[in-house]
Amino acid sequence: MTSKTVVQRLFPLMLAVVALVFSGCAVTTQSTDPLPSWTDGAVKQAITQFVVNVTTEGGKDYVRPVDRIAVFDNDGTLWSERPWVQGLFLEQLLRNAAKRHPEFGAEQPYKAALAHDREYFETGGIRVMIEAIKDTMLELARDDFDAEVAEFFANARHPGLNVPMSQTVYQPAIELLEYLRANGFKTYICSGGGVDFMRMISSDFYGIESDQVIGTSYQKELHLIDGTWELLTTGELNPINNKDQKAVNIDLHIGKRPLLVMGNEGGRGDIGMMSYSQGRKGVSLQLLINHDDAAREFAYAEDDNASLNAAKENGWIVISMKDDWSVIYPAGDN
Amino acid sequence: MTSKTVVQRLFPLMLAVVALVFSGCAVTTQSTDPLPSWTDGAVKQAITQFVVNVTTEGGKDYVRPVDRIAVFDNDGTLWSERPWVQGLFLEQLLRNAAKRHPEFGAEQPYKAALAHDREYFETGGIRVMIEAIKDTMLELARDDFDAEVAEFFANARHPGLNVPMSQTVYQPAIELLEYLRANGFKTYICSGGGVDFMRMISSDFYGIESDQVIGTSYQKELHLIDGTWELLTTGELNPINNKDQKAVNIDLHIGKRPLLVMGNEGGRGDIGMMSYSQGRKGVSLQLLINHDDAAREFAYAEDDNASLNAAKENGWIVISMKDDWSVIYPAGDN
Repeated sequence: MTSKTVVQRLFPLMLAVVALVFSGCAVTTQSTDPLPSWTDGAVKQAITQFVVNVTTEGGKDYVRPVDRIAVFDNDGTLWSERPWVQGLFLEQLLRNAAKRHPEFGAEQPYKAALAHDREYFETGGIRVMIEAIKDTMLELARDDFDAEVAEFFANARHPGLNVPMSQTVYQPAIELLEYLRANGFKTYICSGGGVDFMRMISSDFYGIESDQVIGTSYQKELHLIDGTWELLTTGELNPINNKDQKAVNIDLHIGKRPLLVMGNEGGRGDIGMMSYSQGRKGVSLQLLINHDDAAREFAYAEDDNASLNAAKENGWIVISMKDDWSVIYPAGDN
Repeated sequence: MTSKTVVQRLFPLMLAVVALVFSGCAVTTQSTDPLPSWTDGAVKQAITQFVVNVTTEGGKDYVRPVDRIAVFDNDGTLWSERPWVQGLFLEQLLRNAAKRHPEFGAEQPYKAALAHDREYFETGGIRVMIEAIKDTMLELARDDFDAEVAEFFANARHPGLNVPMSQTVYQPAIELLEYLRANGFKTYICSGGGVDFMRMISSDFYGIESDQVIGTSYQKELHLIDGTWELLTTGELNPINNKDQKAVNIDLHIGKRPLLVMGNEGGRGDIGMMSYSQGRKGVSLQLLINHDDAAREFAYAEDDNASLNAAKENGWIVISMKDDWSVIYPAGDN
């Protein structure tokens, strides 16, 4: 065998190796639109231009990967919040508690939960529910709580849309998360939702691992239970992770001002963390979703338009669900 | 030009591309000892065997990268804690406060700080100091605090070792951090130290970014200062991140039981998080440093040997600094 023959024999193999290795490496060229569910226009352009600016080495707005912190609200930002998904879960917690304690069933809020009386909870029953949950939480060690969450997501369907909860996420938000991560951003959730609740689905739904989820939490204590040290809640909540507290907890968990924040109008909940992000030295981007799409999602607004006014005043980008998103939910077969 | 010639011309280029691409990929083979400052013996063997077991796909102890959570205490685990480094920093804070407010200088603990009276602080002055710091912290917006920390690390030298603080880190611990990260672990600090203090050096000293540092924190509030939203401390501390609270905060920040924990005896501070780690379903590893090296570092023990007793009772691995570490501090030129 001559050396020429060896080269000839090896050439196809080398080609295959090169192809394989390139396909396995992290950096790939983006030839297709990374945000296909966003309509072409000023909002999409502002986002992609920002990402180009902060990732262009040598450019005046370049930001090192370790500082590419992107923080997302959850309810109304990554998935629909009408009705409040976690509220539906809390109703299940109450129903299961009533099964364990039949004497509870005659009283509120258990009675309403057993009767699937959504109106009761929509009209002020949430406070009563959260108070009642305290006792239930005390009964549940961490694993039991996780099992309750798993049961919920295995069975629950959105009452209006009649799809599994996994299909109430916003397809454009998922694309943005993936686009940012492909550009070296670390993506976080910072939501008023319960941290233990969100962490059960954050990886599957959003590709966000538990240590990048910030939420409302219970105080806990370490107890030895049947030979294993378990963290049990005391039943007392830490400060609700909403409004200014979101900025406080971003500092506590991340320790840096976010380079990018996405939130939504509807509950004034994200003004604090968007303001905090904007105080970053150098560039930053704040995105506020406007729930203005009654036909495909829901249309609702704050009494005083506080979030939209803050956006206008501070130059935050307002995303119109109606105009800027060509698709709302992922394609699904049920 | 025949096709044979093309192949021949391309072959060296292809070889170069393959070499380049492979060298750029994440997975490399480890041909040299990843823990050169650890003496060969049972402890080093237990660590490397554990890492092989949890990273061997298809093996019975395989753990997915997202669950490879490694948590390290800081004081006495990643760097020397005699004296308490942050205590030296707090003395500087007091001195600088006394410069801003000359009337403070006649009173304790400012007087002792100005006189570099280490004995005052070693013998019970720490409580007085922390109380006094409260007022100083209220004066400092986040950036001013960071400047104080930067000043400290630029100038401070260890009183006994007479080296910069960057050289009081333990070389074997640094090697372990790097070895774990090279094997897909995420490395975290969980320490009683102040989180804002540690985050200023965690990347440089340990390769750990701010969002993977858990420590003691002040309560904060968002305030508009000269047109920028700033987080200012209220002066009130959150629960000290020590003992059982370390487990609580690991759950709050990470949301998973650690696969590996390294702590040290001396203050009973790490028993809680080591117990919590051991409650993990499946394998886990707990490493406890014994400060038994009076010649090269310091020798100290708890009155009741609580940490060493817990290690014995629970099968945690005890690291003898004297026997298991061939080197303590990194080589330095000053």
